[in-house]
Amino acid sequence: MHSIICFTSDFGTGDTWVGMCHAVIHRACPQARVVDLAHDIAPFDVRKASAVAAAGVWQLPDAIHLVVADPGVGGGRRDLVIVTGHGGILVGPDNGVLVPATWRAGGISEAYSIVPEHLDFRQPLPTFHARDVLAPAAAVLACGVQASAIGVPVAIDSLALPPFQRSRREGDITVAEVIDIDRFGSLRMAVSADEAAARGLDRGTLEMAFGHLMIEVPFGRTFADVPEGEPIALVDSSGWLTLAIRLGSAAERYGLEPGAIARVRSID
Amino acid sequence: MHSIICFTSDFGTGDTWVGMCHAVIHRACPQARVVDLAHDIAPFDVRKASAVAAAGVWQLPDAIHLVVADPGVGGGRRDLVIVTGHGGILVGPDNGVLVPATWRAGGISEAYSIVPEHLDFRQPLPTFHARDVLAPAAAVLACGVQASAIGVPVAIDSLALPPFQRSRREGDITVAEVIDIDRFGSLRMAVSADEAAARGLDRGTLEMAFGHLMIEVPFGRTFADVPEGEPIALVDSSGWLTLAIRLGSAAERYGLEPGAIARVRSID
Amino acid sequence: MHSIICFTSDFGTGDTWVGMCHAVIHRACPQARVVDLAHDIAPFDVRKASAVAAAGVWQLPDAIHLVVADPGVGGGRRDLVIVTGHGGILVGPDNGVLVPATWRAGGISEAYSIVPEHLDFRQPLPTFHARDVLAPAAAVLACGVQASAIGVPVAIDSLALPPFQRSRREGDITVAEVIDIDRFGSLRMAVSADEAAARGLDRGTLEMAFGHLMIEVPFGRTFADVPEGEPIALVDSSGWLTLAIRLGSAAERYGLEPGAIARVRSID
Repeated sequence: MHSIICFTSDFGTGDTWVGMCHAVIHRACPQARVVDLAHDIAPFDVRKASAVAAAGVWQLPDAIHLVVADPGVGGGRRDLVIVTGHGGILVGPDNGVLVPATWRAGGISEAYSIVPEHLDFRQPLPTFHARDVLAPAAAVLACGVQASAIGVPVAIDSLALPPFQRSRREGDITVAEVIDIDRFGSLRMAVSADEAAARGLDRGTLEMAFGHLMIEVPFGRTFADVPEGEPIALVDSSGWLTLAIRLGSAAERYGLEPGAIARVRSID
Repeated sequence: MHSIICFTSDFGTGDTWVGMCHAVIHRACPQARVVDLAHDIAPFDVRKASAVAAAGVWQLPDAIHLVVADPGVGGGRRDLVIVTGHGGILVGPDNGVLVPATWRAGGISEAYSIVPEHLDFRQPLPTFHARDVLAPAAAVLACGVQASAIGVPVAIDSLALPPFQRSRREGDITVAEVIDIDRFGSLRMAVSADEAAARGLDRGTLEMAFGHLMIEVPFGRTFADVPEGEPIALVDSSGWLTLAIRLGSAAERYGLEPGAIARVRSID
Repeated sequence: MHSIICFTSDFGTGDTWVGMCHAVIHRACPQARVVDLAHDIAPFDVRKASAVAAAGVWQLPDAIHLVVADPGVGGGRRDLVIVTGHGGILVGPDNGVLVPATWRAGGISEAYSIVPEHLDFRQPLPTFHARDVLAPAAAVLACGVQASAIGVPVAIDSLALPPFQRSRREGDITVAEVIDIDRFGSLRMAVSADEAAARGLDRGTLEMAFGHLMIEVPFGRTFADVPEGEPIALVDSSGWLTLAIRLGSAAERYGLEPGAIARVRSID
């Protein structure tokens, strides 16, 4: 059923944290399969973690998604289970990191604050909730326990805000934050595939302005739709509107970083 | 039988790609075990990916090897299944990345161009064939489906050329490209263990010339055959002729990079 | 029973080594689950590997821990299986890398030098004992074989020395080496949770001197016990006394590296 747990964190691959979460899940629910989405996320980079998790949910909506980038660990913030409108399950801290994923999964249907005592595991280590609360929660959910059995309902409007906002419209312009740069240097903006389609940003030529930089770029299906070294806009496997350079790095070419604001419109 | 899938890519460990391929394989063939060989290969570095895959095939010839470094994704190039002379199976794009592995696996016995419709999976995402074509193909092959059932035969001489050539002889000199530098700084050249043995490059002292740099180096079984800081030639676990420094980096010592040409001969 | 194998190495994630060990273990003992603790350890960094392994043992004492950082591979040093006083099993080279883990696992109960012929595997590759000796040993141990069946007993006092020493006391001062810096920049010192408790270094305010640098820092349960940018001492998930900056890097702030000597005392 929910036998796959997609795991995203800022733990890196040079310490014990990722492995310990795997071990905890394996012991609590041997039939679950943990799939590592990304752990090489910069420490505390909640935005990047949320962008990766949202891409993961877009691609694999019916898995359990365990997302940990948790600058506030131990500080009393809640540990959440969110059930999406499409029936997916997200597990992570209440610091906004789970929210963008819900935008593309039918919104939030239910939200619970995990009660560690209900997990019957052990006293949570104050510096490592992932191992002692979040991973065990994901494991029991993967084994069929209902979210309501391990947490108390929380009001959806009480959840922490996401690390970036959904795009907004200003006339014929869509204003969106650059939320992620992938390892190939492609820039992803907070415009979902659905939004791009609804606003005509999935065809023709797009004008993209980042501050004083303004570029015109064709929308395509895939990188190979333009010659080497040329820019292209597309919706890549992340499900976000993306600016890429074929066989190059758009981030380097244009000197852009996450947090930059894009103003995008269709010009034909 | 072929229950292990060795997975090599340039996807890194900071995004969703590797995990999505794991998830696809797990769903399509739960009994397969995916073993990650290397994902920290520089973007688009087909040479490095092919060198790693060839090392993997040398060490585990009877696994399925899924190899993805795919600068041309979406551009119409074929997705291949290659059956080697030794019965191993390679899956990857038709850009040469699979070819060096076949040199040490008995050559190419059969080659097929995958027909996505035969996988009965879903419409391939134009930017992510690995998930939608290559990984599903590896999964069904791991579960016993014949390559001929998911693709159409292609002529072996129509395959794209490899990213580096096999070594060639010039009199008593073997000319070979440096194809890989491992994380310890050891240089691997395109001379296979068999070729080294056939040409007497697996004993005594070797002379290696890289442009104007010429060094004499003893051939040994293992790094510890020379004192700390001294160079040694050996065939390491990659199965390629290797120049290493004991407890040091040959790449740094000699300022060499992949693509350099080595001229090697036995001098005693 | 011992079905989880925690795997720590300096192999990185850009080559075949980690995957090959997974494959070997999977074939030899399919019911074992390999959990990767850390592979992004700098080449030959035995200290870091031993610190990570000791953290792993502290967190998961009843697993098998396979630890490979092996500058002397092929040089005739022994391959060890150590049974701890608490019944845990450690597998790795006899270069001291396993020793710190035993300090927190009840010491060394038994030690064996692995006899490769007893593994009935194949001729060990002289540059890659991990695949041909250590991983197969871990696999058969995971499947229930006794350590005495695959090795010959060795005297505990003949084992190689650890890469760092346990802390020592000088009056009311505890002298300890900085053994590890994690990816968040937290400094871990060779003072175990038990030692910290026994010496009153787990409460109040601590004075820490590193050469001429002297700082006073509150001891806390978790990072969030101090304001952003402030230092805190705690025992983190590694089980070592740790100096951290909330949402910052203690290593950067104080310019410290592994190998530095800390002099620590309680001042209230």
